[in-house]
Parts: sequence; structure tokens; C-alpha cells
Amino acid sequence: MSNCLVIEKAGEPLIRGEIDRGELASDEIEIEVHYCGVCHSDVHQGKNDWGRAFFPLVPGHEVTGIVKSIGSEVTKFKVGDRAGVGVFKNSCGECEMCLAKKENYCLNGRTQTYNAPVANGERTKGGYATTIHARESFSHLIPDNLPLDSAAPLLCAGITTFAPLTQWNVGPGSKVAVVGVGGLGHMGVKFAVALGAEVTVIGRTDAKKEDALSFGAIDFITSEEEFQDRASSFDLVLNAASADVGLDRLLSILRPQGVLVMLGLPTQRPDFDPFNVVYAGRILAGSNVAPMWQTEKMLQFASENNIVSEIEICSADEINQAWERVEQSDVRYRFVLDAKTI
Amino acid sequence: MSNCLVIEKAGEPLIRGEIDRGELASDEIEIEVHYCGVCHSDVHQGKNDWGRAFFPLVPGHEVTGIVKSIGSEVTKFKVGDRAGVGVFKNSCGECEMCLAKKENYCLNGRTQTYNAPVANGERTKGGYATTIHARESFSHLIPDNLPLDSAAPLLCAGITTFAPLTQWNVGPGSKVAVVGVGGLGHMGVKFAVALGAEVTVIGRTDAKKEDALSFGAIDFITSEEEFQDRASSFDLVLNAASADVGLDRLLSILRPQGVLVMLGLPTQRPDFDPFNVVYAGRILAGSNVAPMWQTEKMLQFASENNIVSEIEICSADEINQAWERVEQSDVRYRFVLDAKTI
Repeated sequence: MSNCLVIEKAGEPLIRGEIDRGELASDEIEIEVHYCGVCHSDVHQGKNDWGRAFFPLVPGHEVTGIVKSIGSEVTKFKVGDRAGVGVFKNSCGECEMCLAKKENYCLNGRTQTYNAPVANGERTKGGYATTIHARESFSHLIPDNLPLDSAAPLLCAGITTFAPLTQWNVGPGSKVAVVGVGGLGHMGVKFAVALGAEVTVIGRTDAKKEDALSFGAIDFITSEEEFQDRASSFDLVLNAASADVGLDRLLSILRPQGVLVMLGLPTQRPDFDPFNVVYAGRILAGSNVAPMWQTEKMLQFASENNIVSEIEICSADEINQAWERVEQSDVRYRFVLDAKTI
Repeated sequence: MSNCLVIEKAGEPLIRGEIDRGELASDEIEIEVHYCGVCHSDVHQGKNDWGRAFFPLVPGHEVTGIVKSIGSEVTKFKVGDRAGVGVFKNSCGECEMCLAKKENYCLNGRTQTYNAPVANGERTKGGYATTIHARESFSHLIPDNLPLDSAAPLLCAGITTFAPLTQWNVGPGSKVAVVGVGGLGHMGVKFAVALGAEVTVIGRTDAKKEDALSFGAIDFITSEEEFQDRASSFDLVLNAASADVGLDRLLSILRPQGVLVMLGLPTQRPDFDPFNVVYAGRILAGSNVAPMWQTEKMLQFASENNIVSEIEICSADEINQAWERVEQSDVRYRFVLDAKTI
């Protein structure tokens, strides 16, 4: 049995519970969870904001820890290794996306680390727990120079921002704007800077300006005037804001053929002025984590550039308060749950 | 003086008139207009549907004819050459877009062939006329094997569809859906087929099925059931429908990371379900004609593959009726005005 934090019904607080992880399959590893990042999507799911959550729900998909046991066919991991699991932990392996090594877009539905249907009619239970099982091919070795606590958010916030930056060829000479400097956004700033881009942060207030500059941003803007001054000037805008931000404003600061990357899932249907897209040949692109090979590449890049998340550790007793603070964007910049307190 | 067809006030019919083209500049050519394609956007501008039209308005931006005289510095054209002018006929030449040979996205505003502001406070007057002047660097030689009448629409409908197909690497193995088989759409089908793609046409009725298959499409669908059967199956959807088509339906038939190209300008603000974009990493891309080098490439490709528009010739006396039929999508597939009847 694994101790866990669970929500029994939509909107209720997280409480301590137990889950049975079942038998370890021959291609799985058992991880003793040390840390699990607190993603804003955990909070959305806990409240069933998207109407897609099943209860009881054990959230958590930024999981790091130590390999505790391994299945008989496991070759990549040994007991004692530093290991992690991200947003999903399986896919069909047979569809054209999986065969093309784009298993994050599995046509039969990748298996999310929590809330996903599994064979026995149950749902996967996530990393707010003391142990987790995952197939070795969907698990990652955490590079030795990255601490397990601040590396945990790399597995969602990190790869979520790294993937579109590399997909759209951000590099030296690129001008990138990051909207919102929270859990996602601050990782986006760090990765874009390390990739060689000139990064501007767009915030609601000046509160995080100093931090953003310390992450490598060269500019931090908040006012409408500054915004308008930057019309048609960015190659890529990474929208990492948790609040609904009007697309037209973000499109307007893109160069022709520039890319607005949508990462979050607003609760309203976004709309836009078609001239803003068609006339300047602009691009609005979704992005949703990454395949395993790219997550490995991200971890290597993070290791080489010493990129981890800025974190606040929270205990199991503090988790509900932490969720409230996530909703208020009052965290610098990611809560990480200390699993040994569960 | 040039004879022309002009609209005096928004929504009024086209009537015969005269315009003074002024003196030919040293880098310009004078074209005796033989043909001018009738684009749906002409009709929108004539009614000021987008609130951006200035009157009196002389429409027309798919212009072909014979070079009648040349400025003293012109080297690419000689009198008697077959020449054409498309959607725009100048740009600033100095902004970063122009310097990057993306002058269709000129940051200072390219000069549209009609309705664009020019130095003397006037507006450019288009190709519904017996002559037109254009800078040689914004004019095209029409390949000898392409008739001047059916080649005229290549300069807007043709390049509008060719540009995004090549931007997004459509080629052998690509699965492309073309929505709407009108002036734009039928060119999109022809170009996508010639580029090697498997092309499906999505129509409202079966009326144009036979034609679409004759253009090289391998499938033609109209029903909701057929539509749903094709969920997540196309690499690129070219939305060439003149009517407002819901984005969610079009996004749903794209593979993950597939591209929905928006060509037309709906009169409503488009909106969409963010899951439809973010979750599958889909891309919504605008596109707006092309730089000169790419238009030249398109003409060469059209010449090599014998691609021209399907046309109905109309006379000046028939133009207002032709516009009505354009609004009813009752044309196979592009009206071309015979300029000698003006």
C-alpha cells in the first residue's frame, strides 16, 4: 500500500488516504516518491473545472524519487537510481503517432499519470503519494547535478515550455515574450534564455520583475503603453498565463508569421480578430508536453545549463493552503510536495 | 486616361468611368489589361464589409495583359511581353520584412493594387480597367504556355493557396483537406495534388464532386458522418470556404500537430475549444499571399504542371451580375473580366 493525498469529491480538500498500487509489472519500476510538483492543472482537476475529473482523485505528475524495486525485464534502471515520472506514463505504442515517436499525441489516448482510465475500470493515481509504479520506457533518470526537489517541475512545467521553444526553432537572435511568470512562465524564461533568445516578460504588475531579470530576461513590461510599443516585434509569444488573456493583444506583438504558443487551457472559448491572424500570416499553436525522447533531451539540456525550477517546499499538512496560493498566483514559483510528510 | 469600372459609394453597382494613371515612373511598366480575375474580396470591398474600403473604388488584383510601354530604367520587361500584377504592387523596401524578402508582410504596409493610400492622398485603383501601371519588381512575366485569361487568377487565388501548402511542406504522403471548392479552393486542390498530396474536398453538397475529382482529389465528403470518420486524419486543412465555418469542426479532423490554414476573413470573430488546439498540439495559421520570389516560383510550378484556374469570362456589362453570382458561390470557378469590353 502507498500513502497518498486524495480528493474524494470535486472541490473537497485533499486528505490522507491509501492506495493499492498492485503488482509491479515486469517492465515497470517502483519509485519511492521523494517529491511531487504542484501543477495548476492539479487544482483545476481537483475542482473538476474542465468536467473531466474522476473521483477519488490522487493528483500529481511531476514526480521524482529513488527506484525502490524493478520488474524482471527492466534494464534502464537499477534500485537506488534517481528517477522521475511526468505527465503521462503509457501510450498505445501502435498508432501512427506512437510509431512516429510522438507518443504524447497518442491517437488512442496516452495514459495520464493520474485520472486516466486503466484496464480494471479504475483510474490512474498520481504522485501525491509515497510510491508510484511506471513503465521504464516512460520513466526518466534524473541527472546527478539536478536536485530531486527542484528538478521535479521539469517533468511538466519544464518540458511544457521547452518543447514549443525548440519546435519553433527559438535560438540566438530570436525575440521571445513570455506572458505570465508563474510555474510555467519562469521555466519558459530560463529555457528561452539558455537557448539564446532575447526574452521579454509580460507581467500584470512589477512584483516579479527583479526575479525575471535574474532568470535572464532583458525586459519586463506591464503597461499598455509598453505593450503597444512592441507591436509586431516578437518571433514567439509563450502564453503561460493562468488567467484568460485576450488573444488579440498577444497576436498584435508578434511579427508577421510569428507564433503564439498556447499552453494553458482557459475556461472560456478563446476568440480573435481574423485580420490579426490572416493578414500577417500569424500562427497560433497548441503544445502539450512532449515525447519521451524530447523529455530526455530537455533533462540533458537542463543538466548542462543548470536549469531547475524555483520552488517552495510544502508538507502534506500544508497542501490545501498551497493549492489556494496557486490559485492566487502566490508562489515563487512552484510548490513541491515533500512526499515523506504524507 | 484609362477606362475602368468603378463603385462610387459602398454597395452601389460597378459603372463605367475613367481614371488618370498619371505619368509612368522610370521603374514602372504600363500594362494594357486584357483580363482581370474577380475575387470574392472585390465584392466584400465594394460593399465595405470590412469597414476598410475607400470610394470611389476601382477593384481588381488579378491582372494580366501585354506590356504597352516601359519606364527608362526597366530591364526585366519589354514592350509586348505578357505581364501580370497581383494583390500588391509596392512595399517600403526598408523594413525587416522587406529586407528578408517577405514584402507581402511589409511592416509599413504593402501597397495593395487597389484601395491603398498613395503619396498624393489618393488611393490605388485596380485592374478593372484598360491599363495599369506597376513597378517592374512587383510585376510578373506570365509563362508562355499559360493563357492570359485563366492565368490571371493565379496571381491571387493561386498564390494564396500555393504559399501555405509549400510553407507547411505539403508533398508526397501528405493528407490535405480543402474546405470549399470555389475560386480559392479549386486552386488549392490543383496545387496540393501537383505537390503530391492525397487531397480530400469537403463540400456542402455533392454539386462539385465530379469537378473536384477531375482536379485530382481522391475523396469528396459532405456528410457529418463522413466528417466524423475522418477525425485526426489530415496533416493540413486549407479553409477556403467563403462562409464562416466553425473552427472546432476543422480542427477535429487534423492529426496532432496538424495545421489549419485560414485564408478567408470571416465577418464574425472565430472562436474555438482550447482543448482542440492545446491538447493535440494543433496549429492554426494565417496566410496572406506571398513575396515576389515565391509568386515567381508558383508561376513556374503552374507552368510546369499546366495549372490554371477554371474560369468563366464575363464582360463589363455582365460584371454586376457576376458579383451577385460570386456571392451565391455560383461560378465555376472564377469569373475573369474581359477588359476590352470596358
